[in-house]
Amino acid sequence: MYPYVIVNVAMSADGKLSTCERRQVRISGKDDFLRVDKLKSDCDAVMVGIGTVLADDPSLTLKSQDLIDERRKSGLQDHPVRIVIDSLGRTPLTASVLHKGSGKRIIAVSNAADDNIIAGLSEYAKIIRVGKTRVDLRLVMDNLEKLGIRRCMVEGGGTLIASLVALGLVNEFRCYIGAIIIGGSEAPTPVDGNGMTEEITFPKLELISVEKLDDGVLVSWRLKENKCLCT
Amino acid sequence: MYPYVIVNVAMSADGKLSTCERRQVRISGKDDFLRVDKLKSDCDAVMVGIGTVLADDPSLTLKSQDLIDERRKSGLQDHPVRIVIDSLGRTPLTASVLHKGSGKRIIAVSNAADDNIIAGLSEYAKIIRVGKTRVDLRLVMDNLEKLGIRRCMVEGGGTLIASLVALGLVNEFRCYIGAIIIGGSEAPTPVDGNGMTEEITFPKLELISVEKLDDGVLVSWRLKENKCLCT
Repeated sequence: MYPYVIVNVAMSADGKLSTCERRQVRISGKDDFLRVDKLKSDCDAVMVGIGTVLADDPSLTLKSQDLIDERRKSGLQDHPVRIVIDSLGRTPLTASVLHKGSGKRIIAVSNAADDNIIAGLSEYAKIIRVGKTRVDLRLVMDNLEKLGIRRCMVEGGGTLIASLVALGLVNEFRCYIGAIIIGGSEAPTPVDGNGMTEEITFPKLELISVEKLDDGVLVSWRLKENKCLCT
Repeated sequence: MYPYVIVNVAMSADGKLSTCERRQVRISGKDDFLRVDKLKSDCDAVMVGIGTVLADDPSLTLKSQDLIDERRKSGLQDHPVRIVIDSLGRTPLTASVLHKGSGKRIIAVSNAADDNIIAGLSEYAKIIRVGKTRVDLRLVMDNLEKLGIRRCMVEGGGTLIASLVALGLVNEFRCYIGAIIIGGSEAPTPVDGNGMTEEITFPKLELISVEKLDDGVLVSWRLKENKCLCT
């Protein structure tokens, strides 16, 4: 069994997560910020790839004290479990995700990660070691489910999302579309990686909802079972 | 004076126009197809970049006989003027855009285009020669306005659109978002080129409308006056 996985991203009107230089950009506004915080609060875990940790140094904590208080009342930890997919153990020991806020962290690494590095990281996070040179995401999900994680939000980046989508591990794709154009053939997009080439392998979506939010639009999709079990 | 420019594209839910291999993909459905044909019919011209001609060999003609009949009744040519932006004159003499359907064609080239090639193309299209090594798009627009073209639809690709956006020449950005994921960091997107890097230069948009169409969503934006007059 795998957790229910909700990918949540914000992109420009032309489909970019950030600039060519991978500099984080304000794409949405206050209402979307609250929506994302609420979604995060409703999940058992929030996951990012190492690229996002290195580029943005996110803490992945909840920002709203009200949401934290609500979680406490329900006997939950302040923040969802924070998970980094990090094949080579490149998460800096100073990363915000390891230090800001209380609660559990998980770093998933592959067997190619150095033992000393893993020993260092294990002081701050539970280590899941799966996969030869790249983290085996199916085994990660299997582990997460056994740890009681039923709903997992994925915040990026495009490389991790591409791998999850290609393995059929994503249930929902929620995409905020902001009122700016970023442009750039090299700029990160919500689903990067190698991409699909054959029509039969394109993951098919079903529209759940569309709504105006801040100056942009929130589009939510459900992924249909897909035939792209390639990597 | 410049024509009113409407960019119209269809992208996957993750912001891709086609696959990494630039293979054309069916992103929208019948209703969107009719919408695009109607939009084209309401414009005086339809413009693409040479990359799109080489990748897809589009004819850029109207497909609906009803729309063609309507245009005839209004004393218009069957199809809008078809324009290719083609700095080096690489449009094949066999290209569909030069042969399918009646009506005027324009190819905009730069001074770097070979004279013999231009002579060949000029048998099928009016040639506008502006710019040293790349077509000067502002001068193209100026020429088009003088030819009576008041509304110009741009169908792609991402490189041409990026140049037009960067020059502040786009008035509307209409984007159909289809119910598939294509993925791929190298896949073409609606606005490619070098991209913007400074927040002040991001073209700002204003949402005109959002509507469900076929299995996806049509989002229409108006471009606010922008400060990105860079190339």
